[in-house]
Amino acid sequence: MRVAILAHEQFPDDAKTAVGVLRYSDHDAVAVLDRERAGQRVRDHLPDVQDAPIVAEMDDAPECDALLIGIAPIGGGFEESWRPDVAAALRRGCDVVAGLHYLLGEDEQFRALAEEHAGEIRDVRRPPEDLTVASGTAGDVDARVVLTVGTDCSSGKMTGAYELRAAARERGLDAAVVPTGQTGIMISGRGIAIDRVISDFAAGATERLVTAAADHDVLFVEGQGALAHPAYSGVTTAILHGAQPDSLVLCHVAGRQRVGGYERFELPDPGSYAQLYESMAAPVSGATVDAGFLNTAALDRDEADQRLDAYEQALDAPVTDPVRDGAAAVLDAVL
Amino acid sequence: MRVAILAHEQFPDDAKTAVGVLRYSDHDAVAVLDRERAGQRVRDHLPDVQDAPIVAEMDDAPECDALLIGIAPIGGGFEESWRPDVAAALRRGCDVVAGLHYLLGEDEQFRALAEEHAGEIRDVRRPPEDLTVASGTAGDVDARVVLTVGTDCSSGKMTGAYELRAAARERGLDAAVVPTGQTGIMISGRGIAIDRVISDFAAGATERLVTAAADHDVLFVEGQGALAHPAYSGVTTAILHGAQPDSLVLCHVAGRQRVGGYERFELPDPGSYAQLYESMAAPVSGATVDAGFLNTAALDRDEADQRLDAYEQALDAPVTDPVRDGAAAVLDAVL
Repeated sequence: MRVAILAHEQFPDDAKTAVGVLRYSDHDAVAVLDRERAGQRVRDHLPDVQDAPIVAEMDDAPECDALLIGIAPIGGGFEESWRPDVAAALRRGCDVVAGLHYLLGEDEQFRALAEEHAGEIRDVRRPPEDLTVASGTAGDVDARVVLTVGTDCSSGKMTGAYELRAAARERGLDAAVVPTGQTGIMISGRGIAIDRVISDFAAGATERLVTAAADHDVLFVEGQGALAHPAYSGVTTAILHGAQPDSLVLCHVAGRQRVGGYERFELPDPGSYAQLYESMAAPVSGATVDAGFLNTAALDRDEADQRLDAYEQALDAPVTDPVRDGAAAVLDAVL
Repeated sequence: MRVAILAHEQFPDDAKTAVGVLRYSDHDAVAVLDRERAGQRVRDHLPDVQDAPIVAEMDDAPECDALLIGIAPIGGGFEESWRPDVAAALRRGCDVVAGLHYLLGEDEQFRALAEEHAGEIRDVRRPPEDLTVASGTAGDVDARVVLTVGTDCSSGKMTGAYELRAAARERGLDAAVVPTGQTGIMISGRGIAIDRVISDFAAGATERLVTAAADHDVLFVEGQGALAHPAYSGVTTAILHGAQPDSLVLCHVAGRQRVGGYERFELPDPGSYAQLYESMAAPVSGATVDAGFLNTAALDRDEADQRLDAYEQALDAPVTDPVRDGAAAVLDAVL
């Protein structure tokens, strides 16, 4: 699929979805829309992802199949300043793919344009309507199921899952990511945003995703939230028990000691945190923390190596920084 | 509030909500509707709850303020055979209170009747529309917060909360239950069905309930599901972290060894289960399992006492069967 990616005024640092799509998706990016950086290129900012021109508006973008909304304001609203680009994309017959809480498919103008020009609006955060409670059967799939879990939000669970997929594919394995959040869904073109599902059905939705992908050799399920998080632990638990993984990879940001945005809550140390995940997994699927990912982006190489050593000792398992060093050593531990 | 309670063909054994309302609510029950038992009385079946006549249909019920739907078919649907009773209640100007997945307020006939006769339809399972993520502040309330948790679904968490409230009120404490499921909401006239909330907001909804009730001396929060349940553990976790309790009471059914309806999953033994709850509570609010409730309804007194002794040893904490023996000893342990 040829895609244009909307990231006005936020590319690349605050455009997690846009960068994720550029780095991990199979889509062919024909342009990034950022009116503040028009005329530059993606590679001017990110040398290690697929390149594309940055343009000011949809009318400047080459021919493509879809416009992806690659940024998400706090609260998940729709910025009215994006309206001309979305409308222009629909008038060209493109699909529009968005992960906002505001559902573009319920916008009258967009719906009318999509109908008139035979485009499709895909709100990836909208859950399927036929979800049910879990039956407890995800563990029956033949595929090896590996779940990335975290010590906090934004600790590298999605990145880790895609880096593991890359490492597995390099070895000739038939590997897939099971996306559970909007960025992963936009990268892979499938998945369910588990945080938007009615809580009774959250494990069931995860189970459905794992079961539907069971024909692969190995599945890397993207975890959400964290087990000791005061707000999101319910989502984390539902995914842990719904996916019934064989193996867990604990993702952590070097130096983080308190819950992001909830600083009154200390993170358990990584060794205790791994034990907590194993204790919770035990009654349902019995997975262990077999490896770890550490985000060391803020550190120089020497400091990073020290932190990686300490993290490896704490988990008593192989660890890497997946962006710096790849995921091969972690893959060995979870297969 | 004077209420009639609909429980056609299911009173009392399969009418959990009707029995809960008769046993624990402050409502004045003027009649139970059960067309199979018309002419009998509640006390013919249940000597220890408030008495009321059983009638065949709404037209036979004395004057009242509301009709409560006191039964829930599997799946939460609406039985068309109840329609004449609901319509009759609305025509009399009564409110109608229901906890079904099928929302009576969206039924055209019922909505029109309610409007015409100035009655209100309250679908207690419909969550408020302005829910948000938790801020992690429920632990700041002055009230003592006690959460009933379970080894499984239907293990006595709601009953335990109301029996604790009764014991606390007997001592002159200002005590309230914080309902998190539809039966509790119908008993207490407030609460949120946490299992119906978007999973991202489940802890936040619990936090809102606790904070709103903070002016009482002691709150008994009704738990849901179970921490090792393959389908509902996400809801359980959200309530545990959203409520930030000071103390936990572990509810168990004597002899139950496997998850109800999910028999391939063994329950952890009660001692390990208590540890799991404490490990999960620790990073957020630090509560411990200070007491237990055991449902021994299926056993004679001798067998019950043996099981109670064993359960007390497993938890190393006071336990009672709250229906047989009250909750005074458990209350001592959690205050």
